[in-house]
Amino acid sequence: MTDYANLPTPPSCVADFCLIPIGTPGPSVSNEVAAVQRLMKASGLSYSMHSAGTTVEGSWDLVMRLIGQAHTLVHQNGVLRIQTDLRIGTRTDKKQHFSEKVSKVESILAADGPTAQKSS
Amino acid sequence: MTDYANLPTPPSCVADFCLIPIGTPGPSVSNEVAAVQRLMKASGLSYSMHSAGTTVEGSWDLVMRLIGQAHTLVHQNGVLRIQTDLRIGTRTDKKQHFSEKVSKVESILAADGPTAQKSS
Amino acid sequence: MTDYANLPTPPSCVADFCLIPIGTPGPSVSNEVAAVQRLMKASGLSYSMHSAGTTVEGSWDLVMRLIGQAHTLVHQNGVLRIQTDLRIGTRTDKKQHFSEKVSKVESILAADGPTAQKSS
Amino acid sequence: MTDYANLPTPPSCVADFCLIPIGTPGPSVSNEVAAVQRLMKASGLSYSMHSAGTTVEGSWDLVMRLIGQAHTLVHQNGVLRIQTDLRIGTRTDKKQHFSEKVSKVESILAADGPTAQKSS
Repeated sequence: MTDYANLPTPPSCVADFCLIPIGTPGPSVSNEVAAVQRLMKASGLSYSMHSAGTTVEGSWDLVMRLIGQAHTLVHQNGVLRIQTDLRIGTRTDKKQHFSEKVSKVESILAADGPTAQKSS
Repeated sequence: MTDYANLPTPPSCVADFCLIPIGTPGPSVSNEVAAVQRLMKASGLSYSMHSAGTTVEGSWDLVMRLIGQAHTLVHQNGVLRIQTDLRIGTRTDKKQHFSEKVSKVESILAADGPTAQKSS
Repeated sequence: MTDYANLPTPPSCVADFCLIPIGTPGPSVSNEVAAVQRLMKASGLSYSMHSAGTTVEGSWDLVMRLIGQAHTLVHQNGVLRIQTDLRIGTRTDKKQHFSEKVSKVESILAADGPTAQKSS
Repeated sequence: MTDYANLPTPPSCVADFCLIPIGTPGPSVSNEVAAVQRLMKASGLSYSMHSAGTTVEGSWDLVMRLIGQAHTLVHQNGVLRIQTDLRIGTRTDKKQHFSEKVSKVESILAADGPTAQKSS
């Protein structure tokens, strides 16, 4: 029988989150996102902001604690309600830094030849 | 200046997660979902399974630890890679059990009158 | 070579969405959710509201059009910005109504015996 | 009374999606992601791949059709089941290209001074 209570959490994960403050005076969320980026920087974890969220990497416990702290920080700035969408991946077959995923796909695409480069 | 390192995580949250095993032999994920439901039950937290995920409620730390344990459990069953989509909400203005959200909307809809009930 | 322009969209899908209005005066989103439920009902598609979203089923094009109409409806009610989280599944091996997913997992759990029922 | 049937879909949106093939032989999804990137390129829409998904911008109908075509393409490559997580944003107050969101946050952070730059 599984000893559920003592199951560990994963030693590493890659999380991508998009935090949305609800009930703010206007439609801009840049100040909240900036506050969260300061917290990310202070954490020492590896992270990267993109236009649809922030990707962060580390042990499950540290990453989830950090995102919870982001909620607390934004609440402390006066936001009453927050909703976050989070994608979390774990794997046991290998360790892969999140930036390596993009380069692996780009190397597959590069084999398509010069007329088939990605645009953005 | 914010003392980032000592920011607490939220005392309560509602999380809804959809865990997807990757690299399994076939398209069915029922066994993995059932394994996770046994873990949910053993946790003692309030939860509810629906067709697109499982909603669970509790302190941020307990909920996130539980979902991390779900990843470990499914990995222990031989799945090499797992991706979870998670929606997490926190609010500081009131405590609201997740089932109350649906009844609040239903009471608004009920005021529409008898020709406008929800179907499913 | 793939004729990308003429690729069809899937004939059926199950989508689960959580629509979040941004920049509303307060933290409650019940009125917006109720407005969207009225639209769901009028659509004639099979759907079900739960505490973390609404599940809806139909052809890819009809489901996506409906969720787009939900954005327009909420914008017409004065909300300047909306963010939706959407989980969409398609499969080609069988047709499965979304409610069957839960019953399949419950039948696996039922085989665990009487001391292991789901709670919520 | 609202004429639900004739509600239009939004003229523009920003979508960020993460497509996950289920029931593939191994844990790698790079080939499926590469196939989808070729489709993105052929579409002519503005898009950007990052380690946790792909961001794409355009009218609601074109963006959703494109992501549906991505499902069909991956199914045609032999994948029986696919689950996509999608974040979609619309706003009526202004038109903002997705890359501008990051620069707006970075300009807020830049005002913090030289000891507080973002790392990644």
